[in-house]
Amino acid sequence: MGGIDQVNETRLAPTVANEGNTVENRDGVTRNIPMDAIINLDHGDPTMYEAFWGKMGDRCTVEIKGCDSLSYFSNPKNPCWFLEPKLEEAIRSLHGAVGNAVTDGYSIVVGTGSSHLVNAVLYALTSNHQPNEPNQISVVSAAPYYSAYPEIADLVRSRLYKWAGDARQFEKDEPYIELVTSPNNPNGVIQGSVVNRDGGILVHDLAYYWPQYTPITSSLEFDIMLFTASKCTGHAGSRIGWALVKDKEVAKRIIKFMEVTTIGVSKESQLRVAKILQFIADGCKQFGSPQGDNFFEFGQSLMKKRWQILRETLKENQMFTIPKYPLQHCNFFGDVTNAHPAFAWMKCKEGIEDCEKLLRGHKILARSGRRFGSDPGFVRVSMVGREDEFNLFIDRLSKIQSFNNGDEKDKANASGNHV
Amino acid sequence: MGGIDQVNETRLAPTVANEGNTVENRDGVTRNIPMDAIINLDHGDPTMYEAFWGKMGDRCTVEIKGCDSLSYFSNPKNPCWFLEPKLEEAIRSLHGAVGNAVTDGYSIVVGTGSSHLVNAVLYALTSNHQPNEPNQISVVSAAPYYSAYPEIADLVRSRLYKWAGDARQFEKDEPYIELVTSPNNPNGVIQGSVVNRDGGILVHDLAYYWPQYTPITSSLEFDIMLFTASKCTGHAGSRIGWALVKDKEVAKRIIKFMEVTTIGVSKESQLRVAKILQFIADGCKQFGSPQGDNFFEFGQSLMKKRWQILRETLKENQMFTIPKYPLQHCNFFGDVTNAHPAFAWMKCKEGIEDCEKLLRGHKILARSGRRFGSDPGFVRVSMVGREDEFNLFIDRLSKIQSFNNGDEKDKANASGNHV
Repeated sequence: MGGIDQVNETRLAPTVANEGNTVENRDGVTRNIPMDAIINLDHGDPTMYEAFWGKMGDRCTVEIKGCDSLSYFSNPKNPCWFLEPKLEEAIRSLHGAVGNAVTDGYSIVVGTGSSHLVNAVLYALTSNHQPNEPNQISVVSAAPYYSAYPEIADLVRSRLYKWAGDARQFEKDEPYIELVTSPNNPNGVIQGSVVNRDGGILVHDLAYYWPQYTPITSSLEFDIMLFTASKCTGHAGSRIGWALVKDKEVAKRIIKFMEVTTIGVSKESQLRVAKILQFIADGCKQFGSPQGDNFFEFGQSLMKKRWQILRETLKENQMFTIPKYPLQHCNFFGDVTNAHPAFAWMKCKEGIEDCEKLLRGHKILARSGRRFGSDPGFVRVSMVGREDEFNLFIDRLSKIQSFNNGDEKDKANASGNHV
Repeated sequence: MGGIDQVNETRLAPTVANEGNTVENRDGVTRNIPMDAIINLDHGDPTMYEAFWGKMGDRCTVEIKGCDSLSYFSNPKNPCWFLEPKLEEAIRSLHGAVGNAVTDGYSIVVGTGSSHLVNAVLYALTSNHQPNEPNQISVVSAAPYYSAYPEIADLVRSRLYKWAGDARQFEKDEPYIELVTSPNNPNGVIQGSVVNRDGGILVHDLAYYWPQYTPITSSLEFDIMLFTASKCTGHAGSRIGWALVKDKEVAKRIIKFMEVTTIGVSKESQLRVAKILQFIADGCKQFGSPQGDNFFEFGQSLMKKRWQILRETLKENQMFTIPKYPLQHCNFFGDVTNAHPAFAWMKCKEGIEDCEKLLRGHKILARSGRRFGSDPGFVRVSMVGREDEFNLFIDRLSKIQSFNNGDEKDKANASGNHV
């Protein structure tokens, strides 16, 4: 769930603004980024998809009249009474067309982004916790883990659950919840659970399990699977996430959390995202169409190109390494391909201690490995921004070798490992 | 914040559905309610406003293209980076036009409905609570209090705050948060804080402080004021609430809560509600316009008519009493008027113990006084549903005298108070 990537970097926004070279992530502005602008790749703002949706013109336009959708209710017959039937239909249709998750027999619960659903799932899985159990249920995830998880788990200091860090270090013989992000944020790796003990409950965060990012190797059917429009279609501003939930009682408790925290989810967003998802699902039926209607073909092709450019640039300057991903057969494309994750998980060459600081010195904001339970030699960089932003990033990255200055340069020179 | 009224009654929806006489709160359905249908007035679903918005035709239609609003960000220069500038402008404009709240010098934070903001405010006001303070901060509200407050305060069993019940019974010499709902939900009374001790922080929930419900006697300027589109304009499905916050640090912590729980608020809803609020603000400038553009004139006129019918009906059957509201000068209408609250807080005549059960026997679902920290002799009934629903309610109410049966009738007859 890349969505929550927003949580902290947003604090950076005013800093950037104050320097007078803001990269405002709003329509058009970054299309002419000043050459000396600070570029913010700390968060995964999926604006690269604007190009696709712009090409589609009015084909996904929704029109909402003043008298539409006043009621709280979308479907009183559904336990998830605030879920628009058209959105439910589009979600099932898209998973069917992509083949990334089974939906038959699953309840669908919609949330205000998938971060809302992570909050809700922690409540749903622990609210039956007996009052005589003194300890909260531990929430773990394998490092490097998504940086928002610790904040979500500890925000209001619940007596029901608490953040317990890296799943690989978890040794307590107690009930636990393991958040499994696959492909992983930050590093794009396909992974499974790591604790594997009795009393554990798994939550699969599958925000990036879409064909533009990774080969689709099977239709998953875990107990709780989370998805978000933000990283699938690029519509992060709509704040629509969904959970596929096998157990109806767990689904009911997730719904209860949605009722008490927000009394449902924006109908406007649901109706719009329903139209977008259905459009994508319909477009999946043909490959190589001259109209370019296949959203995932567009996405994969652009990600592939960006990763190729990134790899070439890093090969040139020899300052960073990035993960290699295995070739796998993708059931969706019917072809062997490798992953092109939404983030680049970059590691500085030995001798440079703070990769985030190094990039910041070159006016590239990215997220330190520290934030992911890893070390500051790593940094996470968004690959899903607008084209101009990406190009400027590559341009600066290619110059780091020669322009590297300050502490980091000294350290690097001193250790003899710079080059 | 009437919005949260949804929380529990939604559990009723399937029950209603199962009986085959569902009143579905969806377009058109209740316009032809079967005469034997169960009518659900337990929640405050503000569908009476559909009539106004229907008359306005396309004047408030919004159109959203597939390529609009992909980014998480609305305005990186605002600490509340997810607030659409047009919504902020419309909120300030509407409060200015109505004269119900001061906005100069206030930060505006948008939430997914005002329930989201109540959750956020509890966090914001307690997250600096020192770890060495053993007890959570008490959250109180004067009974009868809005039924969702206890659930919000205790949902995830926070170590920061806890529900402590009726403000009038609160005697601890400790920090506390008092939620002041004015006009009050359920009973429509204008009220102030009741605890008034050192260490108290007030949160004013002003969901119903709009001219259709109550005379606007002054432009309020409390530290934290909460509003919601649901009860102002009727757009409950949009889930848009806003907080006016005097202290910038408190505003920042509310924003932080929004970041961690939902990473902002639907852009589609914000843009649509911006248009609606601006339309209402513009329409406020003229009274008695032949186009009927003044939203609050429409609202007040309809509420006044409904209250008049209700009072006449109750006068006839002598089974219930409802509060009387004082005549006051309304600065908005420039006239002396009294309140016409969104809910009728009905008390059964002595001898009938369970008012909610009595109504249920007549296929009217309403919310028991118990839920508001009051007693079951009271019941709260929505006055803001569709016209057919209201008419059927009145029709059934007028017949309760003669059709009253079962336990309640026996009790009533036995006590000699049934007239």
